[in-house]
Amino acid sequence: MTDSLRIIPLGGLGEVGKNMTVFELGDERIVVDAGLAFPRDEHFGVDLVLPDFSYLVGRPVRAIVLTHAHEDHVGGLPYVLREVDVDEVIGTRLTLALVKSKLDEHGLAAVTALTEAEPGSAPIELGPFRIEFIRMAHSIPDAAAVVIETSAGRVLHTGDWKLDHTPVDGLKTDVGALAALGNLGVDLLLGDSTNAERPGMTGSERLVGEAFRQLIPLRTGRIVVASFASNIHRVQQAAEVAIANGRKVAVVGRSMRKNMNISRSLGYVDLPDEMIVSPKEAMDLPPGEVLILCTGSQGEPMSALSRIAQRNHSFVHITPGDTVILASSLIPGNENAVFKVINGLIRLGANVVHKGNANVHVSGHASAGELLYAYNIVKPRNVLPVHGEYRHMKANAELARSTGVENVVIAEDGVVVDLVDGVASIAGKVDCGYVFVDGSNIGDITESDLKDRRILGEEGFISVIVVVDSVTGKVSSGPEIHARGFAEDDSTFDEIKKPICEALDRAVAEGNTDSYQLQQTVRRVVGRWVSNTHRRRPMIIPVVIEA
Amino acid sequence: MTDSLRIIPLGGLGEVGKNMTVFELGDERIVVDAGLAFPRDEHFGVDLVLPDFSYLVGRPVRAIVLTHAHEDHVGGLPYVLREVDVDEVIGTRLTLALVKSKLDEHGLAAVTALTEAEPGSAPIELGPFRIEFIRMAHSIPDAAAVVIETSAGRVLHTGDWKLDHTPVDGLKTDVGALAALGNLGVDLLLGDSTNAERPGMTGSERLVGEAFRQLIPLRTGRIVVASFASNIHRVQQAAEVAIANGRKVAVVGRSMRKNMNISRSLGYVDLPDEMIVSPKEAMDLPPGEVLILCTGSQGEPMSALSRIAQRNHSFVHITPGDTVILASSLIPGNENAVFKVINGLIRLGANVVHKGNANVHVSGHASAGELLYAYNIVKPRNVLPVHGEYRHMKANAELARSTGVENVVIAEDGVVVDLVDGVASIAGKVDCGYVFVDGSNIGDITESDLKDRRILGEEGFISVIVVVDSVTGKVSSGPEIHARGFAEDDSTFDEIKKPICEALDRAVAEGNTDSYQLQQTVRRVVGRWVSNTHRRRPMIIPVVIEA
Repeated sequence: MTDSLRIIPLGGLGEVGKNMTVFELGDERIVVDAGLAFPRDEHFGVDLVLPDFSYLVGRPVRAIVLTHAHEDHVGGLPYVLREVDVDEVIGTRLTLALVKSKLDEHGLAAVTALTEAEPGSAPIELGPFRIEFIRMAHSIPDAAAVVIETSAGRVLHTGDWKLDHTPVDGLKTDVGALAALGNLGVDLLLGDSTNAERPGMTGSERLVGEAFRQLIPLRTGRIVVASFASNIHRVQQAAEVAIANGRKVAVVGRSMRKNMNISRSLGYVDLPDEMIVSPKEAMDLPPGEVLILCTGSQGEPMSALSRIAQRNHSFVHITPGDTVILASSLIPGNENAVFKVINGLIRLGANVVHKGNANVHVSGHASAGELLYAYNIVKPRNVLPVHGEYRHMKANAELARSTGVENVVIAEDGVVVDLVDGVASIAGKVDCGYVFVDGSNIGDITESDLKDRRILGEEGFISVIVVVDSVTGKVSSGPEIHARGFAEDDSTFDEIKKPICEALDRAVAEGNTDSYQLQQTVRRVVGRWVSNTHRRRPMIIPVVIEA
Repeated sequence: MTDSLRIIPLGGLGEVGKNMTVFELGDERIVVDAGLAFPRDEHFGVDLVLPDFSYLVGRPVRAIVLTHAHEDHVGGLPYVLREVDVDEVIGTRLTLALVKSKLDEHGLAAVTALTEAEPGSAPIELGPFRIEFIRMAHSIPDAAAVVIETSAGRVLHTGDWKLDHTPVDGLKTDVGALAALGNLGVDLLLGDSTNAERPGMTGSERLVGEAFRQLIPLRTGRIVVASFASNIHRVQQAAEVAIANGRKVAVVGRSMRKNMNISRSLGYVDLPDEMIVSPKEAMDLPPGEVLILCTGSQGEPMSALSRIAQRNHSFVHITPGDTVILASSLIPGNENAVFKVINGLIRLGANVVHKGNANVHVSGHASAGELLYAYNIVKPRNVLPVHGEYRHMKANAELARSTGVENVVIAEDGVVVDLVDGVASIAGKVDCGYVFVDGSNIGDITESDLKDRRILGEEGFISVIVVVDSVTGKVSSGPEIHARGFAEDDSTFDEIKKPICEALDRAVAEGNTDSYQLQQTVRRVVGRWVSNTHRRRPMIIPVVIEA
């Protein structure tokens, strides 16, 4: 009997990316990444979106192998570790340091076995799986691809990567290791699709440093640089250019401070202590002698930069002549929030520099040219595009095919792909939806709750309370009508009270005394009235109480 | 005494653009444009956003002068005409034809005096104002700038424009008229700021025709072209290229059909009748012999293109090999909706062409280079940037200053600007917010309702109903607890019922029998419980009924 390696993507394929892929050989399994996604408009008020890992509950996992420490790859870990039997978590040094801090916050650090593994070090045996890391350049240090050797074939999961020839830390994507692996023979490549639609090559992170070197020396006011806190090389480059130009550096925003502390203590960032000042100290320095690093480049309403733009930050204030650099991407869906922040900053007199008017951002993901290059050196027999919306996976699939890859499988979340005899093919599907985190509730919010929230958020509600005599069935109190989000005033509902009572009397006279039926009667009367009179469809909550 | 011309922008300056500007000389006034805006996320469920024209209520208006028929310039007209005393509405031929159709739908066409005026024809006297139109190229035919002559000075309101040297209809921006006006002397220019941040020149609409000529002949499947219905030249170009390549044309989507009918009947679009087919007929033709024009290029959920992408359209179905061209901009805030449509179309096997991968869109607004050119030929003494967010107005102001304009005033909505002795300056402010249209309610939805909707939409609500005995004050029925949008099940609230009763008993024992006070007691108990137990903040609606 031939061995079969089963691959199940549980998240990451679709419009809300949160990467997690199961690799299974018989009843043995490992998982690559355990990400989360940030909610979108259609997720009305939920805090986080997790991959649906219910498939793993009751199915022990040898290891969760992490490619890098971005939230969409590690953010789901605390939730997964609480529900799933996982022997250990494996990752590179910085990845584990950042993950450990996260697990600490969830009270899980002490009970989780974290195993450090460096690219190029000895393979790790995990039952029938043997894994190795290959260094990849990305927008966070210490990112890696994962090689999985099994009796059913050799798999390369690229993680998130690009082909940066001049990374800030000098640690390039290990093209030699990829080529060697290609020469050994790769049966299946799972590859980052994010930029597959983008022609050419993605620029080096060092280009952003070059932009800083052009921008920062010319400025005389304060400089604020906003970036993702995890883009440690970008933050480092801004700080280095600032220091070289006689500016001290302050760090603002919780995640920025945390990541800087971890990166500096592990030696990933080297900045002299005496050049780092507190935000308060920074504001006491002459404006031309300070650079402030902060979070909020996506316009997040509670972030440091949003509060600065609203003149609402405890320490940092913008004065005319200051410069704000948004050294960041503009994630679709965030544009209006970001433009609002930019408008606020410009109103305060700041010059705002962003990727629209300077080269202050490069992507962390391989463009089409780099993907073609990877297919040509790895020469995989099968390709499974991951990490992207359908359009990205489709574009990635076309690129793979154009280099001669025999078999490309597009599998959305929950689709089961089996690798047998060197051929990957779809073998089934497991249940796989979204798991919503809202407050302390995990997975309790359903699509039906979101539908209710949509109606409530767009239309508001009208509640109608009627007390009926439990003996006669006659209305003894009410109807009392409350509405919220409906543009109501006290008298709006006066005209509908009598029709409600009459309808209830009729219903009772016809023998319908069941309170569910009476509630439906109220709903019908009020629904018809509000639709005809106000052309609206608020949620109607009829309550009939017997007393 | 010197005359003073008062200018009050009531909308259009800010993140939700809906253009409307009042020009006032003593108690005489005219208004340029009366637009509306489409709501954004923060407008939870409202249908439309109008400028706040309360300043005009009770202040008669000689004329509303329209620059062109885009919704953000004419969409508010039916609402304004119902509340404000307006003698007449003046515009170019196509503008009025499209406006008339809109007024018809609101039952206002018969009672509104519409006065047609062509660029270059004799000036129109409106009391102390004398107005003239100057032809401007834009993304809808028959757009115009407005020249307003008064005893206090000469004003040019550009409307929306670009410097298209090869417009599809041959009707170029009338640079000669602008130069002549500049030579006469322009005291104040109000100018379109939309693309002021964009360097260089905006491309000609004819470039999109060129893209169609490259794309359409190569395709063998059905072709669907989505565009704004008002971009009549773009629609016309797609249809002409289709017909030249042996394809018949079908028009799908209400506004697209309406605009095509009006444009064809007035001669703005010339397409042979025998080449136009119904959507149903189109689907019976061989795929290579049809092109479908449709709405929905912004991913609007109920639009033709969204329904096609969801396999949910009555007639139009995508089959593998079909091509969909989104010949449109991507308005910030719409990206995710558009990408969802694109993913759906690609899943169905379509090739999707959009501005990201082909030149199928050009803007209708002047870029920085064209604005500089305009300032240099018009040579205004004062400039008031209009039509844009603050960042756009600021960029436009910088451009004007760089050409030597003496005085640039940035005035947000409601700011009163007086032009006296050839100098424009801020003279005050009138109340000016947003007016929301929701169902048949106009202006009833307040910021407080939107705040309620936000809470309801993000958190849901818990309503707690308690019936107390009107004599003893004791709880006689309930608490009955209902929740929606909260991830509730029947037993969630069991644990809080007893504490509610106990708190009420205590309150009554302390002599607090007023139902408002009892409701506050319920709110406190439930609020604290839900925050501690669920870490959430739903709306809490306590209802205490005496019976």
